[in-house]
Amino acid sequence: MVSSPPDPAFLECLANRLGPRGFTADPADIDPWTIDWRGRVRGSAVALLSPADTAEAADIVAMCAAAGVPLVPQGGNTSMVAGATPPANGSALILSTRRMRAIRSISAADGVAVVEAGVVLADLHDAAAVHGLRFPLSLAAKGSATIGGLVSTNAGGTQVLRFGPMRALVLGIEAVLPDGSRFDGLSALRKDNRGYDLRQLLTGAEGTLGIVTAASLRLVPAIGRRAVAWAGLDSPQAALALLRRLEAATGEAVESFELVPDDALDLVIRHIPGSRAPLGGAHRWHALIEATAPQGAADPADALGQVLGQAMADGGVGDATIAASEAQAEALWRLRESISDAERADGMAAKHDISVPVSAMPDFILSARVAVEAAFPGTRVIAFGHLGDGNVHFNVRAPAGIPATGAEGMAWLAETGAAVSRMVNDLTVAAGGSISAEHGIGQTKLAEYARLADPARLAAQQAIKAALDPRWLMNPGKLVPR
Amino acid sequence: MVSSPPDPAFLECLANRLGPRGFTADPADIDPWTIDWRGRVRGSAVALLSPADTAEAADIVAMCAAAGVPLVPQGGNTSMVAGATPPANGSALILSTRRMRAIRSISAADGVAVVEAGVVLADLHDAAAVHGLRFPLSLAAKGSATIGGLVSTNAGGTQVLRFGPMRALVLGIEAVLPDGSRFDGLSALRKDNRGYDLRQLLTGAEGTLGIVTAASLRLVPAIGRRAVAWAGLDSPQAALALLRRLEAATGEAVESFELVPDDALDLVIRHIPGSRAPLGGAHRWHALIEATAPQGAADPADALGQVLGQAMADGGVGDATIAASEAQAEALWRLRESISDAERADGMAAKHDISVPVSAMPDFILSARVAVEAAFPGTRVIAFGHLGDGNVHFNVRAPAGIPATGAEGMAWLAETGAAVSRMVNDLTVAAGGSISAEHGIGQTKLAEYARLADPARLAAQQAIKAALDPRWLMNPGKLVPR
Repeated sequence: MVSSPPDPAFLECLANRLGPRGFTADPADIDPWTIDWRGRVRGSAVALLSPADTAEAADIVAMCAAAGVPLVPQGGNTSMVAGATPPANGSALILSTRRMRAIRSISAADGVAVVEAGVVLADLHDAAAVHGLRFPLSLAAKGSATIGGLVSTNAGGTQVLRFGPMRALVLGIEAVLPDGSRFDGLSALRKDNRGYDLRQLLTGAEGTLGIVTAASLRLVPAIGRRAVAWAGLDSPQAALALLRRLEAATGEAVESFELVPDDALDLVIRHIPGSRAPLGGAHRWHALIEATAPQGAADPADALGQVLGQAMADGGVGDATIAASEAQAEALWRLRESISDAERADGMAAKHDISVPVSAMPDFILSARVAVEAAFPGTRVIAFGHLGDGNVHFNVRAPAGIPATGAEGMAWLAETGAAVSRMVNDLTVAAGGSISAEHGIGQTKLAEYARLADPARLAAQQAIKAALDPRWLMNPGKLVPR
Repeated sequence: MVSSPPDPAFLECLANRLGPRGFTADPADIDPWTIDWRGRVRGSAVALLSPADTAEAADIVAMCAAAGVPLVPQGGNTSMVAGATPPANGSALILSTRRMRAIRSISAADGVAVVEAGVVLADLHDAAAVHGLRFPLSLAAKGSATIGGLVSTNAGGTQVLRFGPMRALVLGIEAVLPDGSRFDGLSALRKDNRGYDLRQLLTGAEGTLGIVTAASLRLVPAIGRRAVAWAGLDSPQAALALLRRLEAATGEAVESFELVPDDALDLVIRHIPGSRAPLGGAHRWHALIEATAPQGAADPADALGQVLGQAMADGGVGDATIAASEAQAEALWRLRESISDAERADGMAAKHDISVPVSAMPDFILSARVAVEAAFPGTRVIAFGHLGDGNVHFNVRAPAGIPATGAEGMAWLAETGAAVSRMVNDLTVAAGGSISAEHGIGQTKLAEYARLADPARLAAQQAIKAALDPRWLMNPGKLVPR
C-alpha cells in the first residue's frame, strides 16, 4: 500500500502534460473535492488532475501506473459511501472528469447518446429532450452527478422499476484501464457476445478497474403524458399489492412506485417549508406513483384512476389523489425527494440502502423495524423508497435531540450507529439481501462488506481486481477489501 | 496445456464419487456428445460426468482442479460455435448438467423462477405457463437447449427486441468456480451493488470461468393476445422505418421483428413441405412481426393493422397480412424458423452471426452483400433475422451445386468459406460491429476473434481468465484466445 504523497518532480511531469487548466496543486482548489458528499469523510490530495479528453486521461493513468501513484477518479463527488474521496494519507491524486463534458452524439434513430464521463445528468436530460427523447434514469443529485460516476456506481433512482439501473442502460463504454490502455467498447451494439462483458464489469466497479471516460446510453421516447398519484395505505403489504394491481392493469406504464411511511411525511411537513399532506385523513403508509404514456396514447391518469378507485372501493387503499396539474405532480414528488433533507434537519440517523427479494420486503420492513427499535431504545426507523425494486432506505434515527452535525451526533453515529448498522446488515443478509442496493460499497461500507461477504464472491472479486490492477492503484481503499 | 487423457486411477475416483448414474466411460454413451450441433467439429473424451446436484458438481470440479484435468461443461449441446465440444486430444472430460433439471421454485409474486442448469428451455416455458407467466426468451433449439447453456452463452433469440438477451433476464446465478468453490448468487435481487457483478461476468462466459449450476430468471405475465403479421417491403431501410413506426404507435407491444429476404423465403417454399408465400405479389424483402398484449388489454391486431394500413397507403409497405388464427400465426413463424433448414437442404453456406448499430444495419446488409458477391463470384448472400437488434445471420451460400454435407462442401467451407468469413468479419469490424452477436465465440470463431479483437479488450479478458482459472482448465480452447 502506497502511503506517502508523490514526489514533486513527478507532479511537475503531470503538470507539463496537462497544462494549467488540467493541473492544480493549490489547496484552495483541491479542498472541496477531498470531503465526501455527506461531509463525514475527509481525505487529502496534493494535486487535482483534470484531463481534457480521453487521450490525456490515458497518458496520466499510464504515467501514474509507471510511477506507482494511486488515482482517485471523481465525477460530481455525490457518492453516498465516500466512493470518490481520496485516502487521508495524501498518497493518491484526484483525477476529475469535470473537463470531459462533451455530448458526442445523440442518435434519435438508434435511441443512443454517446456522452463523456463529466457530463452532468441533468444536462443529458436536457439534451435528450431536444430530440424528443429522454434518458430514463434520475435521482436527487442529478444537478451534480456525472455520467462517469453514475456508470461506475451502477446508479439507481426512481425509474429502475421500469427501466432498470444504469447497468441496463449502458450500451457501450470507453475506459482507460489501470495500465493506461484504452478500452474502446463504445459501439452501441444491442447484442455482442465476444467474451466477458467488460462493459458490465466496469459498470459498478467504482473506478477500481479503471476510469470510465465515455458511455453509450440508451434513450427512450419522451413522455407524452404522465400521471402522478398519492395513495394512503395500511401497510407495506397493501402497497405491494397495489403495485401488482397497477402492473397487471397497465403493463409497463408504472415507472415509479415509492413507499413513504407516515413519520417520513410528518418530518417533511414539519421541516420543509411549503409542504403539506396530500390526503385528508391519517394513513400509516403512503405510496407515490407515477405512470406515463407515449405521445398520442391515452392519458395514463385514466387507468391509474380506475385501479385506485377499485382499490378504494374494496379496501385495498384507504384514500388516493391524482395530481390535477403538473404543479401538483411536482409538489407530490417534492414530498418524496425532501425526505432526506427533512430527516437531516430533524437529527442524526444511521442510514442503510438495502435490498431483499421484492415480495419479502413488506414483512422485512415491519419485522426489522420492531427488532431494531427494541434493541436500541429511543431509535426510530424510517424505511422508504423503491418498494417495487425490493430496495428501501432503512434509516434508523438517533434518539430525539441528537443533531445531524457536530460532535454529539458523530459520537452517536460512531458507536451506537455502527452497532445499529451491523444489526440491520445482519438482518438483511439473513433475508438473502444486499447491504448495498444502489449506493455501492465505497469506503464507508467496506468493513461491513468484508465482514459479511460470501467467501467465494469476495475471492473472485479480489482475483479480478489483482489481475487488472496488480498494484491496487485505482481508487484505493474502495469496493474490494484487500 | 494438458494434452493427454486423465489416468484410470483418477477416473475411478470420479466414478466412485458420482456412482453409476453419474459416470460413464462407455464410448457408446459418450460419442453423441463429442460432436457439435452442426456436425462439423469432432472432439474426444474418455468419460462423461453427470453430477446429480450442485454439491456433486462442486466436488468434481475441485477434484479435477487438484488433478489438473480439464472439464468441458455441456447442456443440450446446441452450441452454434462448438462451444461445448471437447478438444480432440481427449484430455478433457465432459461435465453434463443433464441430471440437474429441477425447477426449484416459481414465485408468481416476484416473477422469478429458480431453475437448475439442466432444465430444457421448453420445459421452463411450460412450467411458467402453469402460473400464468412466461419466460420471454425463445429460440429454435428450445427443445434441447438448457438453462445453463443459455446463461453461459448469453443466448438471444426472437424476443430480444423487447426483453433483451439472457443477460437482461438473469436475476441470480449459482455456480461452481474453477477451484471448486460455490458462488451463491441466486437471491433474486432487483438491485445489488456489492462489487463486481459476477452474475454478469458468468453470463456469456461459455463455461470458461466455472459452471453455472442454477439461475434465477425473470418471468413476465403470459401473453393475453398476440398478433402476427407479414409485410412485403422494398428494402431493409423500409423495414427498419416500419419497425420505428410500429414502436412509436404501440410502445413496447412489438416483441419480434424479423427480416426475411425474398431468396430466403424462396428457399423455404422450395425445400420445406407445406410452406407457401404469405403474400400475393413479389417483394424483395419481408418482415415477420409479432405484437402482444397482456390479458384484458385491447387486441394488438388493431394497432398493428392500423399502422400497416397507413404504411400501405403511403407506400412504406408494399403489402401486408395479419394472421387471422393461431394456426396462421404458427405458419408465418414456421416460414421464418425454417430458413436454416431450407438453406442446408439447398447447399453449403458460410454462416455469420453479426451485429452493427441498429440504424447502420440496412445499409450494411446491402453494401456487404454487393462486396462479398463481387469478391467471391457465384456466392449468394442471405441476410435475415433480428433487424431491430442490429443483428442478422449473414449467410453466404456456396455456388450452386455444392452440398451442405460431404467432402466437397467441407472443402469449400475450409478454403473459400474461410476467406468469405474473413471478409465478412472485416466488414463488420469496420462498421463498429461484433463478429458474434448471439452465438458466442466457442471454438469455431476463436481464431477470427483473436485476429480482430481490440488488444485492450483481449488483454483484460485473458487477465480475468488467468485470475479465476490459472491453469485454464475450464472449457479449454473456447472463447478466450490463450
